[in-house]
Amino acid sequence: MGPHPAVAAIRLAVRRVLHDILNDHQALPAQPAGARPDRTAERPPSPLVLVACSGGADSMALASALAFEAPKLGVRAGGVTVDHGLQSGSDLRAEEVVLRMRGLGLDPVESVAVTVGREGGPEAAARDARYAALDAAAERHGAAAVLLGHTRDDQAETVLLGLARGSGIRSLSGMAAVSGAGGRYRRPFLQLDRQTARKACMVQSLPVWDDPHNADPAYTRSRLRHEGLPALEKALGKGVVEALARTAQLSRDDADALDAWAREAEASVRDAAGMLECAKLYALPPAVRRRILRRAAIEAGAPAGALFARHIEEVDRLITGWRGQGAINLPGRVVAQRQGGRLVIRQG
Amino acid sequence: MGPHPAVAAIRLAVRRVLHDILNDHQALPAQPAGARPDRTAERPPSPLVLVACSGGADSMALASALAFEAPKLGVRAGGVTVDHGLQSGSDLRAEEVVLRMRGLGLDPVESVAVTVGREGGPEAAARDARYAALDAAAERHGAAAVLLGHTRDDQAETVLLGLARGSGIRSLSGMAAVSGAGGRYRRPFLQLDRQTARKACMVQSLPVWDDPHNADPAYTRSRLRHEGLPALEKALGKGVVEALARTAQLSRDDADALDAWAREAEASVRDAAGMLECAKLYALPPAVRRRILRRAAIEAGAPAGALFARHIEEVDRLITGWRGQGAINLPGRVVAQRQGGRLVIRQG
Repeated sequence: MGPHPAVAAIRLAVRRVLHDILNDHQALPAQPAGARPDRTAERPPSPLVLVACSGGADSMALASALAFEAPKLGVRAGGVTVDHGLQSGSDLRAEEVVLRMRGLGLDPVESVAVTVGREGGPEAAARDARYAALDAAAERHGAAAVLLGHTRDDQAETVLLGLARGSGIRSLSGMAAVSGAGGRYRRPFLQLDRQTARKACMVQSLPVWDDPHNADPAYTRSRLRHEGLPALEKALGKGVVEALARTAQLSRDDADALDAWAREAEASVRDAAGMLECAKLYALPPAVRRRILRRAAIEAGAPAGALFARHIEEVDRLITGWRGQGAINLPGRVVAQRQGGRLVIRQG
Repeated sequence: MGPHPAVAAIRLAVRRVLHDILNDHQALPAQPAGARPDRTAERPPSPLVLVACSGGADSMALASALAFEAPKLGVRAGGVTVDHGLQSGSDLRAEEVVLRMRGLGLDPVESVAVTVGREGGPEAAARDARYAALDAAAERHGAAAVLLGHTRDDQAETVLLGLARGSGIRSLSGMAAVSGAGGRYRRPFLQLDRQTARKACMVQSLPVWDDPHNADPAYTRSRLRHEGLPALEKALGKGVVEALARTAQLSRDDADALDAWAREAEASVRDAAGMLECAKLYALPPAVRRRILRRAAIEAGAPAGALFARHIEEVDRLITGWRGQGAINLPGRVVAQRQGGRLVIRQG
């Protein structure tokens, strides 16, 4: 008799990602180019894959699947838990997660304490601190990859959060299956629903820990999870989560293609002195032109996070609705103005 | 003292659209090319603009603004109401809407009775019947345009309905400000919120009729309006409607640009015999390649409405994940298969 379907599903998801990691790993040179070949260096050493584990159902399921699949593929499997220090006793809980990971057979395992700042709000600050700690752990252990337990439900929430920004399809594209420097972060569960991860823990008798933040209505994502998304499902049907996740993938591909187009087109709309020519910009499709304008504003020093669609629209009107309007002020003291058929964007 | 801000807002929105219509109208030749010029044909006759009015707040506000602005611009203003015949007494109500439009000074005004079929569900069937009747009315009266009362709130709902389909950014692009044959349909209120239209009716003492369908939870849009969207606003903040409407515009521009790219790229990936070459398709960005595959499937006879993202993904794997798989069955008895480095898509 095979494993429970939920357990089979999480293992298959992890196995696929491990294969990808191995492919990428073996494609790397085993040693610095030009070094003298020697017998022991013929094969790269067995790669290490870490799981980032909070002790919640998603990442515990992920840890269990990694512990099961890695040895069969000659991969070493370890784990990291991040102690955000946001609740009293979080250090003890982190130690418990370490014990649980060790119990699964992961090695090395460690707990890393971080200090969460305030920049960008509580969720963004916690995320920044967490990824910095995971990056450092990956470097320290020489890990080939770090697995993250984000599920399709997390992806759907991320798409809705992006939708609420109203800043276009890039913000609808959610989380990537592969991200970070050199594709370090992998999300094997991005096509799997949260219920499957939870079920897999249950049938494997894995204790899981429910982060109280996940149910705290002070957090936007938590409100979305417990009120917004269920109401949407009630109105639109049960397929909403899957539809949102598919929207993420399609939007990501579309945004990538348009960014590539804008990068290529940018050279063709500059004159010999490197200035943007309004007439040539005018001839481009609006979607491409606005991406070029956005890139130019960021290059001039406007912070990407503070540059909204309405800023770019206003700059665009210097091209498409020219009636002698004055300079446009953008975030980061960047100024855009039209001068003699050229668009000048620079820090004032 | 000027009008109430809500009334000023609806009038400004209509004035802008009337200017656009006049510009388009005056750009048309006044008479067939080559005809002998005569004095009376020097100027095109005063154009007629119709408002589609259900008697609800949005379209009553629109009718009132059209009646006020049109004469000032030398435009004739009329109105049409569609009797869907879905409730007993709907014919009497339609006659009442006719009287109200006449009371606003619109001329011609008429009520058109339609028979709503069943195809595509009750909402789609009613919409199809309505637009067919409006098209016919526009032709009959020689109208230059038909104004529709869709607001920013309607647009937000449409984006969410598209999101639930999960079929990509074209379905996120909502309703266009200008649509239909020759740009016949115009939506002056697409940037205006429903509350403003409602307020404008109130301060003008215009009686409005609330369509019971709008509150009927049997309708997806109604559930979205009364439960889904409010819950999303509660989770994500009051800016959600505006963000959704902006997403619609950005998605529309992006989808237009990518469609244009796909149209151009299509010629370059066909061999001398007009066959799609797999190697050349492979080199394109996924977003462009999938659009070409979709176009090819539709050209071969697959009905666009039945062709989902997952179908195209499967065809795409003949290009990107070729391991000798067999023919792919698509809707409309269309079959896609790889043969000697070529992709063959045709009706089986």
